[in-house]
Amino acid sequence: MEAPFREIKGGITAPQGFRAAALRCGISAQSGRDDLALIVSEVPAVAAATFTTNRIKAAPVRVSAAHLRRAEAHAVIANSGNANACTGSTGIQHAKRMARAVANVLKIREGQVLVCSTGRIGRTLPIELIELAVPKLCAELNVNNGLAVAQAIMTTDTFVKEIAVEFGIDGATVAIGGVAKGAGMIDPKMATMLAFVTTDAAISKRHLQSLFYESVEQSFNRITIDGDMSTNDTAICLANGMAENTPIEPSHPAYGRFAEALHFVTRNLARMIVEDGEGATKFVELHVRGAATVQDARKAAEAVANSNLVKCAWFGEDPNWGRVIDAVGYSGAKVREEMIDVFFNGVVAVQNGIASSTPEEKLQEILRNKKFTLTIDLHLGSGEYKVFTTDLTPEYVRLNMGE
Amino acid sequence: MEAPFREIKGGITAPQGFRAAALRCGISAQSGRDDLALIVSEVPAVAAATFTTNRIKAAPVRVSAAHLRRAEAHAVIANSGNANACTGSTGIQHAKRMARAVANVLKIREGQVLVCSTGRIGRTLPIELIELAVPKLCAELNVNNGLAVAQAIMTTDTFVKEIAVEFGIDGATVAIGGVAKGAGMIDPKMATMLAFVTTDAAISKRHLQSLFYESVEQSFNRITIDGDMSTNDTAICLANGMAENTPIEPSHPAYGRFAEALHFVTRNLARMIVEDGEGATKFVELHVRGAATVQDARKAAEAVANSNLVKCAWFGEDPNWGRVIDAVGYSGAKVREEMIDVFFNGVVAVQNGIASSTPEEKLQEILRNKKFTLTIDLHLGSGEYKVFTTDLTPEYVRLNMGE
Repeated sequence: MEAPFREIKGGITAPQGFRAAALRCGISAQSGRDDLALIVSEVPAVAAATFTTNRIKAAPVRVSAAHLRRAEAHAVIANSGNANACTGSTGIQHAKRMARAVANVLKIREGQVLVCSTGRIGRTLPIELIELAVPKLCAELNVNNGLAVAQAIMTTDTFVKEIAVEFGIDGATVAIGGVAKGAGMIDPKMATMLAFVTTDAAISKRHLQSLFYESVEQSFNRITIDGDMSTNDTAICLANGMAENTPIEPSHPAYGRFAEALHFVTRNLARMIVEDGEGATKFVELHVRGAATVQDARKAAEAVANSNLVKCAWFGEDPNWGRVIDAVGYSGAKVREEMIDVFFNGVVAVQNGIASSTPEEKLQEILRNKKFTLTIDLHLGSGEYKVFTTDLTPEYVRLNMGE
Repeated sequence: MEAPFREIKGGITAPQGFRAAALRCGISAQSGRDDLALIVSEVPAVAAATFTTNRIKAAPVRVSAAHLRRAEAHAVIANSGNANACTGSTGIQHAKRMARAVANVLKIREGQVLVCSTGRIGRTLPIELIELAVPKLCAELNVNNGLAVAQAIMTTDTFVKEIAVEFGIDGATVAIGGVAKGAGMIDPKMATMLAFVTTDAAISKRHLQSLFYESVEQSFNRITIDGDMSTNDTAICLANGMAENTPIEPSHPAYGRFAEALHFVTRNLARMIVEDGEGATKFVELHVRGAATVQDARKAAEAVANSNLVKCAWFGEDPNWGRVIDAVGYSGAKVREEMIDVFFNGVVAVQNGIASSTPEEKLQEILRNKKFTLTIDLHLGSGEYKVFTTDLTPEYVRLNMGE
């Protein structure tokens, strides 16, 4: 029996045939910080991506979606410091010029380059700075720059978010690497933020898409920090086949293992995003079970996870389960008050809709942990849903009161 | 021609035949503050009320709704410091005992007493304290205590919210008085908070209900502070007929004037609630117009008004219209990015979906005002919706991190 996957170093450049680079071209006002990053596969890669479901989509989102429909992907270029959103037809031209700049230097097609931007909405992208920097960026491409890319796409992130795993398939070694940025404007309605996953696995576009969509649904779509969904959310997965494994298909025994490793990568990136939520001091795993339907479980979980009052109470280390029940009550989920149980770290706080006999001090003690679980059992059916979220703090407000 | 209505002093005791009282019975932890209030009409009054649409309803909400269906109302008793919500069948018994205590002393029926509670969810109401205090409370009833009631129902409110108007109907003088508490857990999905409106007008229950529901829809349902809807929201209107005016009917010329005066009272109370939003430093009148439908206008307005990122930017006096457009984009309303215009105090910030030529400093100057308007024109139809809201501040978090 082959070993399960194991974590390795290297992030997105851990899989064979991926090189990366990052530098500062001057878009971001924060001096000294890299603001432009590039990921390149030696050979064209099959690609899967999910984009924001916000009806207002940034120019790079629209350009990348169009490129993805037409061709295999060869490279991803991303900038921080400017979202290139709400920038009209000029913005579209700029996103295309970003792709073209990379294509020209690397001698690939413009349609093979995906483009991402993150930062302030509504300002013209300083495209000349990017065009000027791309030749140098391409010259610096190498297999040790995974971390540099992780740093360059950070905005208010306080730590880099990268991970990589490898495992065997019929004697071949396959690796999956991932990197993400998050921090604010995080909501589970879609992908969220930027996330790039690379793999040297051989797999068809169709199967990669199906597995990656499922993986995003179980990871980036299960986290919420403030309920705001950005115009730029993008998650991209590139598979270049350089591991030369037997192509991964549902009938192949390695299909499940690949899926598991991919989910591990996306779940870990998602978890890191929540742990680094803007100003957050608490990391909460919120589990609604016993709902009449999965949709109801989701509504209840998201209402609680996005309730400012609930989140302020967590910051104050106050169990205040009344606010939790209140949010469940207005979530739209079917509820019967006298059936609801609530648990913190498995300790019952509410039984049959009223206070349990657990002393409040015991619950307060649990809330003093940096991480805890909150379980809500509606006792109406078998629908369940899990989200990861944070508290709401004065620091969140301060981080978001300016640019 | 008769004069339009004019503002008068006296709040809820301005209309004839209404007396009030307030005292401290010891429910609230805040020493020195009154926590029990009573409003009584000399004669049974027709009543209209709207309650929270939260599926988790506090015991007093359920008891009052039942009383309202059966009888005319004679009195309203309200406590702060404890919500009597999520308290099971004991809570229902306590709410009934609150009504019965008043009924016993005043020699009226239990079903003629409406009950309201506000405060922490999930704790047993100290009903004995209330029962002990009710005889004294009834003894102190007088026509000068409108303000005392306004003070007693305050929780984190920083100023009292009361108003009264009077006007003539066929030679009779009719008055309408109102009082409210608000501050947090305010969302437009329903009434919100506690609001009591009294009038000595003669009007049928049916017509009072129709006018009051419309009035609540145009006032308390148009304000949002944090998007959280409480288990206890209640707005009650009592009309005791003691002005002895010709009964107000739709065919009567005074119907419109009464409606206008009632709307003036509720709109002003609603506005005071937002102006006193927890920790708020900004008061924003948000107007969405040109939406495909009224429902779309409402979705867009509420998404913007409840976006933490938008509200943090306001606190920072940063126009950041990108966050406004972002929220419109995920609101679910139909939008075409290239059609959207955005104005602050009428000054164009966004034209056709992109930055206008207005210098950012000019917009920043507008944001430095304590009050400003934000208008979003979707240019897709004639749907419009207005809400009043606030910014999100570190002080909001601090006020809500404990009890």
